[in-house]
Amino acid sequence: MKLFAGILNISAAGKRIAIIDEQAANLLGVHSSDRILLSCCGRTAISIADVATGYPSDRIWLYLEIAEALKVKDGDALEVTPAPMPESLSNVRAKLRGERLREDAITTIVEDVVEQHLSDIEISAFLTALKVYGLSMTETEALSRAMVETGKTLNFGKPPILDKHSIGGIPGDKTSMIVVPIIAAAGFTIPKTSSRAITSPAGTADRVETLCPVNLSLAEIREVVKKTNACLVWGGALELAPADDLFIRVEYPLGIDPLLLPSIMSKKKAMGATHVVIDIPTGSGAKIKTPAEAYTLAQDFVHLGKHLGMTVECALTFGEQPLGYGIGPVLEAQEALNTLMGRGPADVRDKAVSLAGMLFEIVGIENGRVKAAAMLRSGKAERKLREIIGAQGGNPNIKPEELPVGTEKAEVRAQENGRVLWVSTDGIVQVARAAGTPKEKGAGILLKAKLGDAVEKGQVLFEVYAERSSKLTAALEMAKKLEPFGLSKKTGERMLLDRFPPKTTSPRRESHFMLER
Amino acid sequence: MKLFAGILNISAAGKRIAIIDEQAANLLGVHSSDRILLSCCGRTAISIADVATGYPSDRIWLYLEIAEALKVKDGDALEVTPAPMPESLSNVRAKLRGERLREDAITTIVEDVVEQHLSDIEISAFLTALKVYGLSMTETEALSRAMVETGKTLNFGKPPILDKHSIGGIPGDKTSMIVVPIIAAAGFTIPKTSSRAITSPAGTADRVETLCPVNLSLAEIREVVKKTNACLVWGGALELAPADDLFIRVEYPLGIDPLLLPSIMSKKKAMGATHVVIDIPTGSGAKIKTPAEAYTLAQDFVHLGKHLGMTVECALTFGEQPLGYGIGPVLEAQEALNTLMGRGPADVRDKAVSLAGMLFEIVGIENGRVKAAAMLRSGKAERKLREIIGAQGGNPNIKPEELPVGTEKAEVRAQENGRVLWVSTDGIVQVARAAGTPKEKGAGILLKAKLGDAVEKGQVLFEVYAERSSKLTAALEMAKKLEPFGLSKKTGERMLLDRFPPKTTSPRRESHFMLER
Repeated sequence: MKLFAGILNISAAGKRIAIIDEQAANLLGVHSSDRILLSCCGRTAISIADVATGYPSDRIWLYLEIAEALKVKDGDALEVTPAPMPESLSNVRAKLRGERLREDAITTIVEDVVEQHLSDIEISAFLTALKVYGLSMTETEALSRAMVETGKTLNFGKPPILDKHSIGGIPGDKTSMIVVPIIAAAGFTIPKTSSRAITSPAGTADRVETLCPVNLSLAEIREVVKKTNACLVWGGALELAPADDLFIRVEYPLGIDPLLLPSIMSKKKAMGATHVVIDIPTGSGAKIKTPAEAYTLAQDFVHLGKHLGMTVECALTFGEQPLGYGIGPVLEAQEALNTLMGRGPADVRDKAVSLAGMLFEIVGIENGRVKAAAMLRSGKAERKLREIIGAQGGNPNIKPEELPVGTEKAEVRAQENGRVLWVSTDGIVQVARAAGTPKEKGAGILLKAKLGDAVEKGQVLFEVYAERSSKLTAALEMAKKLEPFGLSKKTGERMLLDRFPPKTTSPRRESHFMLER
Repeated sequence: MKLFAGILNISAAGKRIAIIDEQAANLLGVHSSDRILLSCCGRTAISIADVATGYPSDRIWLYLEIAEALKVKDGDALEVTPAPMPESLSNVRAKLRGERLREDAITTIVEDVVEQHLSDIEISAFLTALKVYGLSMTETEALSRAMVETGKTLNFGKPPILDKHSIGGIPGDKTSMIVVPIIAAAGFTIPKTSSRAITSPAGTADRVETLCPVNLSLAEIREVVKKTNACLVWGGALELAPADDLFIRVEYPLGIDPLLLPSIMSKKKAMGATHVVIDIPTGSGAKIKTPAEAYTLAQDFVHLGKHLGMTVECALTFGEQPLGYGIGPVLEAQEALNTLMGRGPADVRDKAVSLAGMLFEIVGIENGRVKAAAMLRSGKAERKLREIIGAQGGNPNIKPEELPVGTEKAEVRAQENGRVLWVSTDGIVQVARAAGTPKEKGAGILLKAKLGDAVEKGQVLFEVYAERSSKLTAALEMAKKLEPFGLSKKTGERMLLDRFPPKTTSPRRESHFMLER
């Protein structure tokens, strides 16, 4: 059936939606929410049909996403037919029955996700089944490959191409901003893409953006890497493994993360990485709770890397508290800069040097840690980061204290004498987000005490920064409710850990879900 | 934030969708596809927000479903805020982790489904998790209760209230149209609601609709039952267990049916049934393949019935071929009428008398089968059906041959001599649907041979009826492809059952999914 396009300036989070009149729908035999196939000028795309009544029956109204996919203009004639059942749906159904999927079956699913042929219902069922049944290594590998093949890829010339990635899990982790310049300063290529925060106070892209633009095109990235051996850019708009963003949109409300491995590894593969270090923060408040889990995951990363043609090594790192003292985009960028300038906290420095050292060693350099420390101490790494900042369009001479921290500030103090027994990463994350992170870049938390520190009653445990007073108030209320610091006279003397039912309906009980990876 | 309503005449299959401008969305901190809470004149409802650009920022456009939920008119002022996370989502997440849910957790989920607070993504994940992990009896019972409590219920006065239900699975099953008048003719109350076909050639509502209206209001149903002890109506618009329709919408594309038990039993409970017979057709082409599966399911039905305060007995019935000879709304109504008039096929008569007999026995009548047969033989059951037809607004004196069968007709003949070794229920269903059932009521199939019959080459196996010649052609093509009849000289002499890969890409290989229940 031929229908004439009307373009609506409406978007639905990537979903392709078209509205047709009841009369046209009846002629097509299409019901509301059915899939229809649209063709125009040699392009075809599948859309969800919503059905309107009392509108002209020779028209079809397109949301932005489908209009862009078809590149149609107002008034263009579209050929409209009911869409056939997507080929991949029978593979999704096989997974629901618990079958192991073959590579070609996985490929059709990922292709249909990227082409938007599968609905939210179907993608959700697929991811839930993966979460419940688990993935075989064959499936994991096939998913990784399919996610690479349905997206763009980069080639930076001759190997090795290095990369570093954290699976996420503890706030304040600004390691990439230090590891990347250490590696690049030694002459190796390390084109680092990273994500923005989804559920955390800051992603690497949010941190770096306080220093320079991160939303670069593929051509610009190539230029920056050519000049500096490195980059620190946002990967979100590069269409590397675009299936992943579509999966994340569905995983987020469900609080499940079955695609951790293929998601990370497909993006490394798309960037052409040959040698990768994966950081697995391990601790009761991290994504990975125990060393046993961490080792299993590490094994899978190494194994998958081998299948995809990459040398992978994993670092199990201490994940019982935030890394460093600053949490929030600006506060973290300051701390990273300070660390490169030789005045950062010991834990940040140690983690960066350890991970950079592992990277050096997997490309064949002995005593990698020593080399990494030398790059830091000599100031070469600092100069390299400033070079990258300049190449990406920022001010290479920026001083940490010039970055604008939120002007609204308050202090949270100890209620008693004691030692810091635990710091709740969940609690810190939620207070920082209540303060306005990641959107308000100057918002955040500056810790004034960490695990094992002795504090006196009235001493400041942490400072909260915000850009608006209403957010500061919200953050302080959250801090009061969650009490992210646990103090004790001496470990093991305070026997009552918690009470049930809880004395407040505190969000601390609702386990905080981290999707960043 | 206050926004002024604009009503769009657009529906999205029950989903509540509102469109706001980018500026308003930014002020609210809402992204496309987020949930927003709308309030107006004491009513509140949650909607999905789509985001438009370049529209007036003080307006909000409402799809029909949300406009109706709020009962707003064009220009009404709405209070709009970001919606809190639905309470039930943490329960859905718990199910994804494999936890057993308590009754109150299940109740919040069902309530939020009915109130449309949960998205397709979340409902799909919940149903997939139920399908994979299975349901405990406590969960099944809680789901049944919650589905009853979130819908309307009926009370027909003093017990017993009888009911009969088939879990579905074989085409041509017109038993309810015979059992209901047999029971009512004996003075018992049997208010039967039924569904329309989703994936089959006809549901009981489709069959009865060829004789009289089935879309009655609750008040009209009460009137009909008062007059005749019975009714044969469509349950779809009565809002008995409305959650079920919302679940079915999600289950359908996935081909899963985890809610078989609570779906059926909640509807029986909502109608006030106290004594129920459940028919479980069992056979290789039916929903339940083996007696072992059937016994397990039967046990669950009986158990669940006890918990819900109903006496339930299950019938395992022969499900290896269609029931009777007619398939399609009119052809089945004819056959049911003929059976009541003493001239129906033996299998239809036997099944109806058996099930009616079981119903008599569970309310304390001895030799129920004898009593059922007597009701049939005496013509009392026929008179009762005509009474019901009249009370529901149809012609009580209708003759079977007056019902309009499709005028387009063709015959499918045997290609060789032999005995009917098998009849594919899947194949028959697909040919009948290609012919136009259930929408075109005169379309369908009239079998001319059944299991064990000897046929000669060229003899008619079945007739296909359609209302349009294009559908007849499609049905004949389907018949050619699927070959729903298997003939053999003598059982066991033809050794090659099938070949792989298949010689055609026949839809016979794609297991046909039956959602009717």
